[in-house]
Amino acid sequence: MLEHTDPSFELKSYLALQRQIVNTALDEHLKSLPLELVMREPLAYALSTGGKRVRPILCLAACAAVGGEPEIALPSACALEMIHTYSLIHDDLPALDDDDLRRGKPTCHVQFDEATAILTGDALLNMAFEVLSGTGCKAGPGNASRWLRVVAIISNASGCLGMIEGQARDLSFEGVKLKHEALESMHRLKTGALIRAAVHAGAVLGGASEDQIDRLKRYAENIGLAFQVIDDILNIQGDPSVLGKAVGTDASRQKNTYPALLGLERSRAYADQLIGDALRALDIFDNKADPLRAIAQYIVDRNR
Amino acid sequence: MLEHTDPSFELKSYLALQRQIVNTALDEHLKSLPLELVMREPLAYALSTGGKRVRPILCLAACAAVGGEPEIALPSACALEMIHTYSLIHDDLPALDDDDLRRGKPTCHVQFDEATAILTGDALLNMAFEVLSGTGCKAGPGNASRWLRVVAIISNASGCLGMIEGQARDLSFEGVKLKHEALESMHRLKTGALIRAAVHAGAVLGGASEDQIDRLKRYAENIGLAFQVIDDILNIQGDPSVLGKAVGTDASRQKNTYPALLGLERSRAYADQLIGDALRALDIFDNKADPLRAIAQYIVDRNR
Repeated sequence: MLEHTDPSFELKSYLALQRQIVNTALDEHLKSLPLELVMREPLAYALSTGGKRVRPILCLAACAAVGGEPEIALPSACALEMIHTYSLIHDDLPALDDDDLRRGKPTCHVQFDEATAILTGDALLNMAFEVLSGTGCKAGPGNASRWLRVVAIISNASGCLGMIEGQARDLSFEGVKLKHEALESMHRLKTGALIRAAVHAGAVLGGASEDQIDRLKRYAENIGLAFQVIDDILNIQGDPSVLGKAVGTDASRQKNTYPALLGLERSRAYADQLIGDALRALDIFDNKADPLRAIAQYIVDRNR
Repeated sequence: MLEHTDPSFELKSYLALQRQIVNTALDEHLKSLPLELVMREPLAYALSTGGKRVRPILCLAACAAVGGEPEIALPSACALEMIHTYSLIHDDLPALDDDDLRRGKPTCHVQFDEATAILTGDALLNMAFEVLSGTGCKAGPGNASRWLRVVAIISNASGCLGMIEGQARDLSFEGVKLKHEALESMHRLKTGALIRAAVHAGAVLGGASEDQIDRLKRYAENIGLAFQVIDDILNIQGDPSVLGKAVGTDASRQKNTYPALLGLERSRAYADQLIGDALRALDIFDNKADPLRAIAQYIVDRNR
C-alpha cells in the first residue's frame, strides 16, 4: 500500500522533529505572555503535556505536500493544538467525562481546580484565534484572504457544526445503542472535523489548488475515522502505561465504540480499509506527500 | 455635559431599535443552523435572553460615529454578544460564581445541565469567530485585512490578555482586600477589554482614522469602568425585579467593589468623572457620535 513512499523516509525521526518544532513554537508563544498573568501557569501546564501533536503535524505535512514552506503553517499548527488541548481539558471535567489522568499526568481540574480548568480551556480556544489573526495581520494585506480562510476552516471545524456538536452527541448517546451510521457521523464531528481542518488549513497555507484540497480532505476524513477506530481498539487492547490513560473505560461506561458494534476483528479490518482509501486519495501527489502516507500507516500501527 | 448632543435624539427608541436589529440578526444566525443539531436548543436559549445588548450596540454606534454604514458592523456586533453570552454562561457555573438566575431566567446549567452549559459557552465563543471569518471571506479580498484585524481585536480582548485573565484575577482575589489600582486593572480586563473591543471593531469596520480610533478607545475605556462602578452600586441599591438578578451578592461574598473601597457617594462621583472623560474624548466627532454620547450618560443613569 505504501508504493509511493520513499523507502529512505523515516517516520519516527520525522515525527520527533516535527513534534519538537511544534513544541518549541508553543513554548515561544507561552514565553511571550506577560509574566504576571494568573493564567500563565495553567496554560503552560496544559500545553506542555507530552501529546502526540498529530493535528499540528498533519497541518505542516499537508502544507509541505502541496509544495509550501511548512514554516508558514506553523502558527496554524499551534492553533490546532491549542484547540485540541482545550477540548481535552473541557472533556475531562467532572461534568463531562470526569477523567483524572491525561497523557499520564493529572488533568487540569485535578492539578488546579474546576474553575481554572474551565477558564484555561476557554483561553486556549480563544488563543487559537489570536494566533491565527495575529499572524495573518503581520503577513500583510496580500495574505489576509488566505489567513481569514484558515480562521473560517478551523472555527467551522471546532464549533457547533463540528467538534462541539460531536461531543454533545457523544454525551447524549451514553447508554443508547447506536447504529454504524450514527456512530460514524458522531466521530466525523467529534474528532474527524478538526483533523480534516488541520490538513485543509495546511493545504490552503501551502497554496494548494482546489483539486489538491479535495483530495487532501478525503485523505483526512479517512485517517480521522481510522484514528477513532484504533482509539476504540486501544481502549480494549492497549497498555495503560504506554497509553498514559486508563483502558476499559469505554466498556464500563457502555460507550458506543466500533469494537462494541463490529467486534474487534472487523474493526481492525475497517481501519485498514479506511487507510487504503486515504492512501488512494494521495495518488496525484509526489513524494512530498510521503509524510502524509507514512502517518496514515502509523495511525493503524500505533500502540498509544 | 451633553452639549454636543442633538436635542431631538431619543436614546430610548434608538436603543430599542438597535436591540431589535441585533436580536433579529442573532435569530437569523440561529435559524441558519441545521435543525438536527443537539446544540441548537441550548444555543437558542442562551442567545434569546433579554440582554441589554450593550456591546453590539456600541459596536454599531462606533461604526456610525465615523461615518460607516452600521450594517457593515452587524456581524461583528453579533460576535461580541456571542462572546459576552458565553462568558456569562461559564461565569455562572457552579465551579465559578454559581448563579442560578440571569436576566430573570434560570442560568444555562440550571435549565439544562453543567455539561451542556460548558459546551454551549464553548460553542458561542467559537461561533463568534465563525461569524467574523465567514463574513470576512464573503466580503472579498479587498476587505480581508479589515476583517482579520477585527478578529485580532476581539480575540485579544476576550482571551488570556483580556476578559479571561480578568475573570481569573477576580476569582483569585475573592476574600483578598484590594487597593484601587488592582481592582481597576482587574475590571479593565474583565469587562473593559470587550467593551473597548466593541467600539474599536465598529470603528475599524466603519473606516475610522487612527486618531479617531484612539479617541474612541479612550471613550470606551472610560465608559467600561463607569459601567462596572454602576454595576457595583446597583448590587447594593438596585431593585432585583428590575435588574433580573439578586442584589447584595457582592457583599455576602466579600467581593472587592468600588462601594466597598470608596463608599457609595465617592463611587457615584467617580462614575460621573469617568463619563465626563468619555464625553471629552468624543470632542472631535460631529452629531453622528450622539448615540455614543447618550449611551455614556445612560450608563450612569441606568437602574438595571
